[in-house]
Amino acid sequence: MTETLSTLPPTHTGDESLAVRIAKSVSVVDDGALHSLDEFHDWFTARGQRTAHVERVPLDELTGWSSDPVTGNIGHDSGKFFSVQGLSVELPGAPVPAWAQPIINQPEIGILGILIKEFNGVLHCLMQAKLEPGNRNGLQLSPTVQATRSNYTRVHQGNPVPYVGYFQDTSANRVITDALQSEQGSWFYQKRNRNMVVETEAEIEQHEAFMWLTIGQLHRLLAIDDLINMDTRTVLSCLPFSGAQLAEQLPGTGGDLRMPILRSCSEDQGSLHTTGDLLSWITDARTRNEVRTRLTPLRDVAGWRRTPDAITHDTGRFFDVMAVRIETDGDREVRQWTQPMIAPAGIGIVAFLVKRIDGVLHVLAHARVEPGYLDVVELSPTVMCTPGNYEGLPAAARPPFLGEVLSARPEQVRFETILSEEGGRFYHAQNRYIIVESDIDVAPELASEYRWMALHQMVGLLRHSHYVNVQARSLIACLHSLSGAQGRN
Amino acid sequence: MTETLSTLPPTHTGDESLAVRIAKSVSVVDDGALHSLDEFHDWFTARGQRTAHVERVPLDELTGWSSDPVTGNIGHDSGKFFSVQGLSVELPGAPVPAWAQPIINQPEIGILGILIKEFNGVLHCLMQAKLEPGNRNGLQLSPTVQATRSNYTRVHQGNPVPYVGYFQDTSANRVITDALQSEQGSWFYQKRNRNMVVETEAEIEQHEAFMWLTIGQLHRLLAIDDLINMDTRTVLSCLPFSGAQLAEQLPGTGGDLRMPILRSCSEDQGSLHTTGDLLSWITDARTRNEVRTRLTPLRDVAGWRRTPDAITHDTGRFFDVMAVRIETDGDREVRQWTQPMIAPAGIGIVAFLVKRIDGVLHVLAHARVEPGYLDVVELSPTVMCTPGNYEGLPAAARPPFLGEVLSARPEQVRFETILSEEGGRFYHAQNRYIIVESDIDVAPELASEYRWMALHQMVGLLRHSHYVNVQARSLIACLHSLSGAQGRN
Repeated sequence: MTETLSTLPPTHTGDESLAVRIAKSVSVVDDGALHSLDEFHDWFTARGQRTAHVERVPLDELTGWSSDPVTGNIGHDSGKFFSVQGLSVELPGAPVPAWAQPIINQPEIGILGILIKEFNGVLHCLMQAKLEPGNRNGLQLSPTVQATRSNYTRVHQGNPVPYVGYFQDTSANRVITDALQSEQGSWFYQKRNRNMVVETEAEIEQHEAFMWLTIGQLHRLLAIDDLINMDTRTVLSCLPFSGAQLAEQLPGTGGDLRMPILRSCSEDQGSLHTTGDLLSWITDARTRNEVRTRLTPLRDVAGWRRTPDAITHDTGRFFDVMAVRIETDGDREVRQWTQPMIAPAGIGIVAFLVKRIDGVLHVLAHARVEPGYLDVVELSPTVMCTPGNYEGLPAAARPPFLGEVLSARPEQVRFETILSEEGGRFYHAQNRYIIVESDIDVAPELASEYRWMALHQMVGLLRHSHYVNVQARSLIACLHSLSGAQGRN
Repeated sequence: MTETLSTLPPTHTGDESLAVRIAKSVSVVDDGALHSLDEFHDWFTARGQRTAHVERVPLDELTGWSSDPVTGNIGHDSGKFFSVQGLSVELPGAPVPAWAQPIINQPEIGILGILIKEFNGVLHCLMQAKLEPGNRNGLQLSPTVQATRSNYTRVHQGNPVPYVGYFQDTSANRVITDALQSEQGSWFYQKRNRNMVVETEAEIEQHEAFMWLTIGQLHRLLAIDDLINMDTRTVLSCLPFSGAQLAEQLPGTGGDLRMPILRSCSEDQGSLHTTGDLLSWITDARTRNEVRTRLTPLRDVAGWRRTPDAITHDTGRFFDVMAVRIETDGDREVRQWTQPMIAPAGIGIVAFLVKRIDGVLHVLAHARVEPGYLDVVELSPTVMCTPGNYEGLPAAARPPFLGEVLSARPEQVRFETILSEEGGRFYHAQNRYIIVESDIDVAPELASEYRWMALHQMVGLLRHSHYVNVQARSLIACLHSLSGAQGRN
């Protein structure tokens, strides 16, 4: 691979003045913020005093949910929310060419929305301290609104969802980003949520479970294990943090990755591959991989068995479908309920290799097939796996670049934090999110699956659905966090 | 609606020098072309002398195809090509909230590719005179390659597909456009083809069924009924005919729509809505419309019955599933075969209303739900219907703006040609493609479904899948044809 940059066509994706305003908020952690981080931690700790009790219960103790006597599918009695079904997958030519698994089918589209507003000339995000049953630590920091359609149309007669009106009717405010984005393609069947950022100039009534924070403060908090939840991360990644001449407009001191990241967000700084070539590469991957999926009765999923406590793989790997009972006096819409969840086996690794090419940071994206994607492949982190799941499988099934991540020297590891996946569906689902700087080249036999991309190219694709998976979106939010003037590295 | 233009953010989609080279080819019809249009017509007429015999046969006379004894689904004995199945559709809240219908299921992705090359400094397209069984007139002008995966992997042991290598391995040439695009969402279940334009500088061996033509010549031929086939039109629409300052770089005389179209292709000339607002509008439409589709046995499709000759709707409307036998000495890969086809009832109307806003031409796009779309809605022509299908339905089910098209004064009609849909699947399927200039406003109650868009916004979305349906793509090709220096109007 030659390290020359192609500069045509630059894909102009944003609005410079907005990109600069976002960058300014990224740079504000102390002076200029409505609240200090100390105030945040005091408030967040106080919110955590509210009791929440979550316990695993046998599947038969689900109330309001039933297992269909014919199919074994687990569904809510209202027919809403979601169901757990079986999925049959065929992937001709892959190392594992066919399998069956349980999967969550949640056809309704929810809203993940962050309301933003300028205070003292600095953009702030209205964030929520939210209890989710799957969170190992109870409370995490979520977007302003995180609601399924069943939530906000109040199928379960809960309380109204605060601030949802700003996202349902945007006519009085400014939509900054608004796209359907996929979630975990190995656990969800074609699920998407609507990722929105809306800017308002209105007076906003403040509820006690919410606090205005700058993007720079959120970036600092991203370095803390299990604090910034998945929904916050995905919405943050969709912020249009790119523009022409961004690097020139934002000089400044900071970590040594600051300028390579800002150049990577600048559309005039070039990229190893043109955006047209990347689109053609994705089209080719979607054409080459013939994935056939079919929803099946959960009862018929081969290799999985139902015990009183869980639906589990014969090897104990992958994940369990299990049930929890929740009692809370928090701000959930109802106070006591049961629900099925997915509990993954072990902590996963989600990592981007990054590399400076002519001073512009590039990330190594993987065109990855997952059975739950609506359009065959999405761009994924360089490495994304639960290492234990690969024991005993053929070597060809082991992920490329895993060794490069696991053997990285300390100075190569630019970010490493354990973060949780969505606590409303996944029980104690954690991944170690890692960004490793490397100067590796992609071997020719892997070139059809892996490509180096500039961040402005990722940002451009994030305006649309079906391109960047949820784990890659998390890592993009983490990578942006290294661009602050006070970046750690 | 106010007629002010927002100019931010301009979405830069292309490569100015390429846009200018394309525009130059658009302007060449006589001088500078390898062949005159007279030479083309002589060649095309001569090609048409080759015999092709197509006759309708009873469904039971299909050979190599079988009706499944349990489901009634019609499939090829190889398991390849396509099958005809049933589809159950639910569309809560729509004027017709549920129905069932036959549908073609063709999961494999084919290639529609035009090879382009400069001769004497002018881009030419390598076009094919191709017989298709569904064409009322036999021969039409198709892309360089128009092949299903079963074709080019030679499932039926036919001849190799000429030139397909340029699209299967693009490494030695330049990919101009490469995106998966949908086809008819009411006849196909989630079908997409790979629309490609590849530029080469290599010496190209010429086969007798192929001729190099300029884009300007293709534009002239678009005005002739049933000549430029659907696959050519969709690939032409994906040419990146936009750029900044395009209007300034290409002054010139021509029809009075020339400059409004060129300004509409120029990203710096503004548009009524920002691209961000249009993306949010599309996201909202995908969230608001809850479409549930399910493939079912063809035998169980309510309201349809199977006679010896066809599967037909009880009212005789919509379409028939029927069978043909083909014998040809043309250049098809095999010389004799039978296949099922869809024969629509009547000639449809496919129309864009267009409007000059501050001198920039805008088209009125419809965010339309069709059951076969992978992602709920796609942008569609303003009007797209077979008027007869709506007789007897509630008034709310009749298409908006149909009256505006049917009652247009002659001077408002800027384009009107009868064109065929894909002749490999559809039998005598014709639509009247119309472009009507109008100064109508969109009534507030229709604003959630219809928006005025500039052409460069369409061109930007055409780099991606799931945005612009095949009929709208045809009309965009027709609209570009009015921008030539010798435009008819």
